[in-house]
Amino acid sequence: MDLSQDEIPAVKDLTIDNITENVHLINSRCPDPRLKYIMERLVSHVHDFARETRLSTSEWMTGLNFLKAVGQISSDVRQETILLSDIIGLSLLVDSIDHPKPPASTEGTVLGPFHTHEAQPEPNGGSISHDPDGEPCLVLCTAKDTSGKPIEKVKIDIWETDSKGFYDVQYPDREGPDGRAVMESDSDGIFWFKAIVPVPYPIPHDGPVGKLLKLLKRHPYRPSHMHFMFEKPGYDHLITALYLRDDPYETSDAVFGVKETLVVALGTVDAEQAEKYGVKEGGKLMTYDFVLVSDDEARKLREENAMKAMEGLGRRMKLYNGLPVPDVD
Amino acid sequence: MDLSQDEIPAVKDLTIDNITENVHLINSRCPDPRLKYIMERLVSHVHDFARETRLSTSEWMTGLNFLKAVGQISSDVRQETILLSDIIGLSLLVDSIDHPKPPASTEGTVLGPFHTHEAQPEPNGGSISHDPDGEPCLVLCTAKDTSGKPIEKVKIDIWETDSKGFYDVQYPDREGPDGRAVMESDSDGIFWFKAIVPVPYPIPHDGPVGKLLKLLKRHPYRPSHMHFMFEKPGYDHLITALYLRDDPYETSDAVFGVKETLVVALGTVDAEQAEKYGVKEGGKLMTYDFVLVSDDEARKLREENAMKAMEGLGRRMKLYNGLPVPDVD
Repeated sequence: MDLSQDEIPAVKDLTIDNITENVHLINSRCPDPRLKYIMERLVSHVHDFARETRLSTSEWMTGLNFLKAVGQISSDVRQETILLSDIIGLSLLVDSIDHPKPPASTEGTVLGPFHTHEAQPEPNGGSISHDPDGEPCLVLCTAKDTSGKPIEKVKIDIWETDSKGFYDVQYPDREGPDGRAVMESDSDGIFWFKAIVPVPYPIPHDGPVGKLLKLLKRHPYRPSHMHFMFEKPGYDHLITALYLRDDPYETSDAVFGVKETLVVALGTVDAEQAEKYGVKEGGKLMTYDFVLVSDDEARKLREENAMKAMEGLGRRMKLYNGLPVPDVD
Repeated sequence: MDLSQDEIPAVKDLTIDNITENVHLINSRCPDPRLKYIMERLVSHVHDFARETRLSTSEWMTGLNFLKAVGQISSDVRQETILLSDIIGLSLLVDSIDHPKPPASTEGTVLGPFHTHEAQPEPNGGSISHDPDGEPCLVLCTAKDTSGKPIEKVKIDIWETDSKGFYDVQYPDREGPDGRAVMESDSDGIFWFKAIVPVPYPIPHDGPVGKLLKLLKRHPYRPSHMHFMFEKPGYDHLITALYLRDDPYETSDAVFGVKETLVVALGTVDAEQAEKYGVKEGGKLMTYDFVLVSDDEARKLREENAMKAMEGLGRRMKLYNGLPVPDVD
């Protein structure tokens, strides 16, 4: 870092009206054009927010203390920062921007704060939940591309709560992962497993995010759902979930995740299925055909959408590693 | 909290284009009009930031991890959230909004992260620094109102670093407060004390804020200064600082605090002063006449400025506890 003064733009006597351009000025030496653009938009929006609300010193301090509390309650198994992003709709928005879906493909939704990297591999037919109080649910799925061709060897991360609405990591005395598994689709794109019927549950609301929801008179509930995450080289990362039809929170998900195309009505296991899959006849059945988008297709759509959005900003932009930055050449 | 579904606006199938209005909708039941307005502007700006940058999932996660680290390094004696606000110019902006100054009064500046509530009272003539390596500096000040009348019994919080550029709280093994004191102006508005000549110093840059500054190619230095905070019922809270003329960082303060009216050239203690104040002739001398604004004057100016800024937003606004909210009646 060169600290010689003649290289640094002079900033002094800053006011409500000139502070923003001067922060941009001193940040303008950032060598990474993407970080520079992100900081420019961030600083502009943070400053406009303060100017438009006439933010008081006491409100500012309340906000900083809130952010501090969000960081401090976070741990390896509690992601309060993600929760905060979830309840203001930012997570859904970022996923929609980064993973655009052509019409025929499966929509994405929020990752949520409970994905872990410790789920164990399960072969087709395995059980992902060992909660004796859960209502058994046979899950039969396929993974295909947008032309309808099965995709084999997709890595599929699946996670759900137990029958009480808690993820494994929410139990301080748990012995290991449960309610989660990593599967792989077979040569017909099929993956299937035994799970339990998802239940609605509140997001953790004993921390700062829960306090904020209460002040906003919002409930902390998520409708019943099961998470799925798909990864395979050549395909766009798909983070999604299936929601149960007619859940009491279907239209008021605390984290804005529900999409009509991801809502499923549970079926019933018939005699043939019961024998084929080794489960009880009459039990619950969830089926879904997931459609993955190729990396190329997703990138093309993402870049088209980006350049279209940039037109509205009224400045010359270009893509840098696929993401917009000002075109200053 | 009433969870009956018919009261809650339905939100589902949210997209890049409709998420913002729907988050506003579900937040619209907030009973506090000020919090509702703050959340509305916050959500709009956060969403616009993501849309204008086409924020990627990986950048989003980097940002959340950064905020988490900012919270986690914070403690009673380390205010990383304030530092973050400082280096993006938000602190200076909020102080300017909340404490407007009529022309004849002393300008405010950033509080910074090192004010504490444990400074000891010192009578006029007391020593606020006990660092044997510091260069002694006699400080002679007055506190007056905008009509030039002395104000007595103003509580004045003063704090500065030691000669190495560290505040007392930055020493884990310190025995008690040093480099800080709380004084009171006498019936002539005078307060005076013995201090040391301030030195430039870097803000703490071994944490996430320091990392960000480095990525932005910014240095972490603040020019030499001494902090002052004035409190007296009937007068607007004044948070300010005096900066030394010709400091190498005068025009590139990492936290944007320097204002020309707050820059002072140190003088020299003459024979008469040496005898009167019990210090060495030829030593350093700092003098300043602070001018405080009355609560009424500050409030009037703050509210005028607020309503003027609101005109630019193109919506009908009113003041609620002195702060703007939409006028929905």
